[in-house]
Amino acid sequence: MLFTSSKNPNPKPFLAITHIFFTLLLALFGSRTQGHSSTSELDDSLVYIWPLPSEISFGKDTLIVDPDLSLAVGGEGGKSEIVRAAFDRYRGIIFKHSHGVSRFKLRGGSVYDIRKLTVIVNSDSEELQLGADESYSLLVARNDGRSIVGEATIEANTVYGALRGLETFSQLCAFDYGTKTVQVYKAPWYIRDKPRFGYRGLLLDTSRHYLPIDVIKQVIESMSYAKLNVLHWHIIDEQSFPLEVPTYPNLWKGAYTKWERYTVEDAYEIVNFAKMRGINVMAEIDIPGHAESWGAGYPDLWPSPSCREPLDVTKNFTFDVVSGILTDMRKIFPFELFHLGGDEVNTDCWSSTPHVKQWLQDHKMTAKDAYQYFVLRAQEIAVSKNWTPVNWEETFNTFAANLNPRTVVHNWLGPGVCPKAVAKGFRCIFSNQGVWYLDHLDVPWEGLYNAEPLEGINNASEQELVLGGEVCMWGETADTSNVQQTIWPRAAAAAERLWSKRETISMGNTTLTALPRLHYFRCLLTRRGVQAAPVTNKYGRSPPTGPGSCYEQ
Amino acid sequence: MLFTSSKNPNPKPFLAITHIFFTLLLALFGSRTQGHSSTSELDDSLVYIWPLPSEISFGKDTLIVDPDLSLAVGGEGGKSEIVRAAFDRYRGIIFKHSHGVSRFKLRGGSVYDIRKLTVIVNSDSEELQLGADESYSLLVARNDGRSIVGEATIEANTVYGALRGLETFSQLCAFDYGTKTVQVYKAPWYIRDKPRFGYRGLLLDTSRHYLPIDVIKQVIESMSYAKLNVLHWHIIDEQSFPLEVPTYPNLWKGAYTKWERYTVEDAYEIVNFAKMRGINVMAEIDIPGHAESWGAGYPDLWPSPSCREPLDVTKNFTFDVVSGILTDMRKIFPFELFHLGGDEVNTDCWSSTPHVKQWLQDHKMTAKDAYQYFVLRAQEIAVSKNWTPVNWEETFNTFAANLNPRTVVHNWLGPGVCPKAVAKGFRCIFSNQGVWYLDHLDVPWEGLYNAEPLEGINNASEQELVLGGEVCMWGETADTSNVQQTIWPRAAAAAERLWSKRETISMGNTTLTALPRLHYFRCLLTRRGVQAAPVTNKYGRSPPTGPGSCYEQ
Repeated sequence: MLFTSSKNPNPKPFLAITHIFFTLLLALFGSRTQGHSSTSELDDSLVYIWPLPSEISFGKDTLIVDPDLSLAVGGEGGKSEIVRAAFDRYRGIIFKHSHGVSRFKLRGGSVYDIRKLTVIVNSDSEELQLGADESYSLLVARNDGRSIVGEATIEANTVYGALRGLETFSQLCAFDYGTKTVQVYKAPWYIRDKPRFGYRGLLLDTSRHYLPIDVIKQVIESMSYAKLNVLHWHIIDEQSFPLEVPTYPNLWKGAYTKWERYTVEDAYEIVNFAKMRGINVMAEIDIPGHAESWGAGYPDLWPSPSCREPLDVTKNFTFDVVSGILTDMRKIFPFELFHLGGDEVNTDCWSSTPHVKQWLQDHKMTAKDAYQYFVLRAQEIAVSKNWTPVNWEETFNTFAANLNPRTVVHNWLGPGVCPKAVAKGFRCIFSNQGVWYLDHLDVPWEGLYNAEPLEGINNASEQELVLGGEVCMWGETADTSNVQQTIWPRAAAAAERLWSKRETISMGNTTLTALPRLHYFRCLLTRRGVQAAPVTNKYGRSPPTGPGSCYEQ
Repeated sequence: MLFTSSKNPNPKPFLAITHIFFTLLLALFGSRTQGHSSTSELDDSLVYIWPLPSEISFGKDTLIVDPDLSLAVGGEGGKSEIVRAAFDRYRGIIFKHSHGVSRFKLRGGSVYDIRKLTVIVNSDSEELQLGADESYSLLVARNDGRSIVGEATIEANTVYGALRGLETFSQLCAFDYGTKTVQVYKAPWYIRDKPRFGYRGLLLDTSRHYLPIDVIKQVIESMSYAKLNVLHWHIIDEQSFPLEVPTYPNLWKGAYTKWERYTVEDAYEIVNFAKMRGINVMAEIDIPGHAESWGAGYPDLWPSPSCREPLDVTKNFTFDVVSGILTDMRKIFPFELFHLGGDEVNTDCWSSTPHVKQWLQDHKMTAKDAYQYFVLRAQEIAVSKNWTPVNWEETFNTFAANLNPRTVVHNWLGPGVCPKAVAKGFRCIFSNQGVWYLDHLDVPWEGLYNAEPLEGINNASEQELVLGGEVCMWGETADTSNVQQTIWPRAAAAAERLWSKRETISMGNTTLTALPRLHYFRCLLTRRGVQAAPVTNKYGRSPPTGPGSCYEQ
């Protein structure tokens, strides 16, 4: 929480005054004040911010925002280029319509209520890791001329909190077609907000289908609108190896074609693009079971040319390549988590290929032992490079006792795994495929919305071991043409689950409390150029069944 | 054709020299010279430019393009902002990957073969109308230091020809992942190109689903990649009326919601955005049969509240509103063509509504007469505002003899209409729904590709009356989420039909000559962030059926 003495032991006078002002406002309006009834076609008792902030108060004023809105910054971190660039992006989003003559209609007077957005960032650190402080407070109020705050003010401890506040501010701004101005309804707004979970992920799979860098950027940009904060980049799988690995330059011979590749510079660019939006990139190499494409460049990695998966467990070369990849990737991906896969390891090739079979006998290992050996050795390599290993749940399900205790268990097979993992002291990420696999097109938005990462975990210290959750956009039938419409709007349902207070979003009839807001958010995405599919279609990414409004389909 | 004395009666010396140089090149390499065999995964005997230019010669060189490629301009129109902005756009497209360290690797020497792109535009007119000269020539060659041309040169009579040349140049440039440079293979290139038809359209329907302005811009931008040049904006239909009409400010009450609207400024912005890409916007109001939404703001336009279509033919108010709309639209849409619709007019409401029935009797009209009366009166209004009226083919099919002779007949119901229309001296646009309606998802790419606007028209003077054709993206089941994947890549098949020489693209087995090139173009679109669907799926916009390369799906 902001403004507490523990976080700000020496609050600057300015901040102290804003604190008092905010406190007064809270006293004046209370929390969740009902707005006025309006002529809007929307249910005016709802707050159209997605995901829902943790504390909200609002009033009855309508404020007009100056299309020449300026940025003022304060605090140690206010001058960050991340803040400046985000302000410019959001100004473009907020004032999409404010071009042409309408822009000048109100000029010359003091008609605009909001001429300035003040962003105060307490820390100048731009370190982006798990648990980065994303809290912020946002005030949008008419300035009565006496207060030193007012108009619009975001205060955050980090630039990443400021980004979340900017997103919320942009969602408060609406273009009014009658007056051709951007307005903030139901001001004054006072919002204090922070995420429920520190890990709010989306998986992209660039092995089943190559996604061009522009498309990955489009996805990242749209993630920021829903306050998701981790792109889990499932770069490589058995079908293709698109990434350049300088230490083993033949690896990307496993790409589908010479054009379906990512250079090291492309990967840097993606990581930086994501960081500018407060999003970490967690890279994955899914070993040993999803790595057939590695052998296109180095056939020695296959047990044999005719039996190609899992990676050959017998050779040091295999681990040299793993190590080389991780060394090269360490330079690209600063995020502390690295995903080593480990799922769906069918060891038949190991049992049937003579030299592997012999090696297993020599080492007195079963194929299952060898699976554990492979995973643990890969974990050691990752840890040696200062990475925290993440594994799909099979590694936990099969040999939990031997896993590195820092391992993050990534649930996918079904419910109930995170409770077991955290009971044994492991951290966990929730991705139950029954609800959070976006390629499962038969799961409606409510299915994603009502999935609860803490289900079955009642002990507070165990709850803290659940880092959050992740929706997975597996790429077998998703390519550039349809990836965004498969992600949105259903990923947004999970995003609110991961950001907002459990008690707030779990009460009441979600058809009344969440669905109209999700419709609104879907239409917001489309206005921003994101190909979000209809909310209530029977199957994910289905086309609309007939003509109609975005707000009702 | 460029460089002929009729077009350039006084060629400047510079141009004359380039002419000689080009002629020499043509003599050296001939037309359609076979390239060298390469290690490319592509069939190297094909030219991967879409749509195929009319005259091409190429060689065997590989040239490297400087990531700091500069623009030099010449001619009366070279300094146009349209050229400058397009160069900046295409530089962004061409050098998507050339960031990070690789950019500097080759610096300091004279390693780059193409450091400069020269764009010569003969005319300084930026008038964009039907028949605008879009021809251009493009030379890309190693500069031997002696020639005054060389490197890369585009020459065109208009800025719009220059835009087409820039698109072609961008398609010659490919990022090479091995050297991390942008290369032009098979240089020297000499291309002389011009479109076969002056009207190469795409219809967007913003009534069945509202498309946000960013989405319309995305479509326009992608149209320019396929050298389409008319956006037929079917703005309004019976379901919704999204456009602001200042003279009748209640009309956009017929929008789905207050947010699903276009201001006058939005429309200006779209027209200007399109013009910067050499694309005209043809607006449509589909009267009298597709206008129910008009009555949301002015119920008097309905025959009665319970029988709402066609527009009430009896009232002068109806034609006052038509005139008011056309007056307001005239300020927004400078294109000489205006579409008045006129299709699917079910006159039951006229025959059954007492006051209309009485009026028909008083005027001794059948309902069919009244349909003609309505269409002709609307045509007069359009003509009085200096517009050339376009009508869907029913008006021609029903009362051809009375139509304004300047009418452009817009075919849609099936084949064989353009032959009849041009035989009677009308101009025609080909949109046979059996092949060029993009919402007909069962038509594969070859269906669109092999559709021939001049089918059945053998007389040269009659052929000239076919302005071209248009693919129609009706919006019943297409919204922001899927409009681009429904348009692409099938619209590109029609775009080549409309641009390239009939004899060139009609010969041979298109599975060998066109399909690999269309795959390549689809992947080019995806690299540019366009959601183009797989080429060979059974139905348009279907997802890929499994993992695979963009170049094969």
